[in-house]
Amino acid sequence: SKRYSITLLPGDGIGPEVISVAKHVLNLAGSLEGIEFNFQEMPMGGSALDLVGVPLPEETLSAAKKSDAVLLGAIGGYKWDKNEKHLKPETGLLQLREGLQVFANLRPATVLPQLVDASTLKKEVAEGVDLMVVRELTGGIYFGKPRGFGTNEDGEEIGFNTEVYATYEVDRIARVAFETARKRHGKLCSVDKANVLEASMFWRKRVIAVAAEYPDVELSHMYVDNAAMQLVRNPKQFDTIVTNNIFGDILSDEASMITGSIGMLPSASLGSSGPGLFEPIHGSAPDIANQDKANPLATVLSAAMLLKYGLGEENAAKRIENAVLDTLNKGFRTGDIYSAGNKLVGCKEMGEEVLKSV
Amino acid sequence: SKRYSITLLPGDGIGPEVISVAKHVLNLAGSLEGIEFNFQEMPMGGSALDLVGVPLPEETLSAAKKSDAVLLGAIGGYKWDKNEKHLKPETGLLQLREGLQVFANLRPATVLPQLVDASTLKKEVAEGVDLMVVRELTGGIYFGKPRGFGTNEDGEEIGFNTEVYATYEVDRIARVAFETARKRHGKLCSVDKANVLEASMFWRKRVIAVAAEYPDVELSHMYVDNAAMQLVRNPKQFDTIVTNNIFGDILSDEASMITGSIGMLPSASLGSSGPGLFEPIHGSAPDIANQDKANPLATVLSAAMLLKYGLGEENAAKRIENAVLDTLNKGFRTGDIYSAGNKLVGCKEMGEEVLKSV
Ligand SMILES: CC(C)[C@H](C(=O)O)[C@@H](O)C(=O)O
Ligand SMILES: CC(C)[C@H](C(=O)O)[C@@H](O)C(=O)O
Repeated sequence: SKRYSITLLPGDGIGPEVISVAKHVLNLAGSLEGIEFNFQEMPMGGSALDLVGVPLPEETLSAAKKSDAVLLGAIGGYKWDKNEKHLKPETGLLQLREGLQVFANLRPATVLPQLVDASTLKKEVAEGVDLMVVRELTGGIYFGKPRGFGTNEDGEEIGFNTEVYATYEVDRIARVAFETARKRHGKLCSVDKANVLEASMFWRKRVIAVAAEYPDVELSHMYVDNAAMQLVRNPKQFDTIVTNNIFGDILSDEASMITGSIGMLPSASLGSSGPGLFEPIHGSAPDIANQDKANPLATVLSAAMLLKYGLGEENAAKRIENAVLDTLNKGFRTGDIYSAGNKLVGCKEMGEEVLKSV
Repeated sequence: SKRYSITLLPGDGIGPEVISVAKHVLNLAGSLEGIEFNFQEMPMGGSALDLVGVPLPEETLSAAKKSDAVLLGAIGGYKWDKNEKHLKPETGLLQLREGLQVFANLRPATVLPQLVDASTLKKEVAEGVDLMVVRELTGGIYFGKPRGFGTNEDGEEIGFNTEVYATYEVDRIARVAFETARKRHGKLCSVDKANVLEASMFWRKRVIAVAAEYPDVELSHMYVDNAAMQLVRNPKQFDTIVTNNIFGDILSDEASMITGSIGMLPSASLGSSGPGLFEPIHGSAPDIANQDKANPLATVLSAAMLLKYGLGEENAAKRIENAVLDTLNKGFRTGDIYSAGNKLVGCKEMGEEVLKSV
């Protein structure tokens, strides 16, 4: 039987609750497909700050690097919000992404027929939405140098960052995006601000160059402000979107809210080699932590992405995806996706119901 | 009687049609309030490129600077999309904003009861939305240096831009935002990405410093990705939003689409002295240009903002605002906001109807 080692990073807030559910689901789906997992839990985020004073301990990063895949719950909370930059939970997450060199962040936004009413968009606009945002994750303004604080010629204080992309960075994320689009509906929309920013003009130039390798994929370009509008106006026009780190941060969150159920949405962050990082797109929700109220399905679906994209175990992944759909079809709902006529359950019970269908 | 000189910049696409309507409306509202206008039409954008080879001719900028206010139609079109940067219509607009030093861009997003169905959001989410985005317009990554193309240490080609804010830049836009919030419902939400970017940490620090001058305004902070979500989830939570140039570009467009009627939305760009720049937020819509199909109301309402914010002529402004509401109440609709049971009209006829109510 196959064996994989998985680093679990429960993190903060509801993180530990949802990771616990996902772990059980992974174990069961794996055992039914002849796969064994070796889980190692490591501290990260605010809980690592409290424990050892840094948001990403070295031991956590090296354990993650040595494993076959990394599953993260959520990080952050009010408690650490005012910390200096190098002591923010978020900084640990950025260090983890950089450390694992997971430059390609895949964020699906799908409106499930069972949950179409959860969207704030009209039913006819929301139903059938099924898009994928491919976000560049280890470059751009998040990591660009120079950055920091200083003074300008007039002696005024300033704060500054650099948005920068190099050929290899755009080319590799573009390839992931074209491959992704090819496996979906063959349409790729590259989002930039090439009417204003040189970094975007460069981005567009490279995306167009890489497009030559994918004649079967239909490439279009859209300015980021227009993309933010079009996601509200008619999200169904999109198949696959590729964009830089900061625009991807904004647009993928907007797209996820359009589905109305961000408690349902997983993500995968992949590099060219080495383990991928898988996490729900929702935050740590400190206000409902430890109350058995969290929706574990985004993390369970992240575990499915881990199987599919991280380990190539499509059958086990399908088991989990189908189990989630079954559970929804049976009417089980956590509070965030509850609507009249369904059965309200907590995090644990939702997990148990999914296990029954795996 | 009072006299004001107004520079009209019809621009491209539907620009000339909507400016022509706004000019007539301004003339009538002015004459009823004892105001005379001296209009000067100047070339700008793609039409200036075709005429004299630059997107903002010197004569246009100097005429604009000498006038009391500037009313712009729209610029841009497919024809000039592939131009080099210094020959893009958009570059002319950026030069105009910089030349006039209009650092504060006010973009209201209001859902009128008459048009609530035009929103793609559910009625209960859209109705009553009334927010104002105050966007910094002459700084940040749009203008920051260094910028351009080059090579990195590895000899790889790069494209780069600088996001940078100085004390005076944040302070002055923050003051405009606090003043705006004070005249509205007293709530200001500052949007940044202070969990990642130094430029945002600096922004937040200065906004908090300026807040001391406005104890009556309730200040909150939100990360830009969350703001993009919250605008979809519950736009009514916002009163006044203040943010940097690029986030403001994205969020104000998202907010405008939430109203469902971007053909209705005006904007004002103001400096500390000198003429303001007023323009509809919609683009030049080349596909419907010269077909008498454009909705002139965003430009008409921009003329009302010109009167109110640019000239302090509140009465004349109110006349125009009321005339627009009257016209909508009578059921007149251009194609973009048409719904069954109303009267479909073209750009000119819409203008004539508004004139009847001024
Ligand atoms: C927590 C934060 C640093 C992070 C980001 O901006 O990338 C988050 O918003 C995300 O999208 O995963
Ligand atoms: C045309 C473009 C340069 C401009 C901007 O990005 O500021 C536009 O999108 C706007 O918002 O007025």
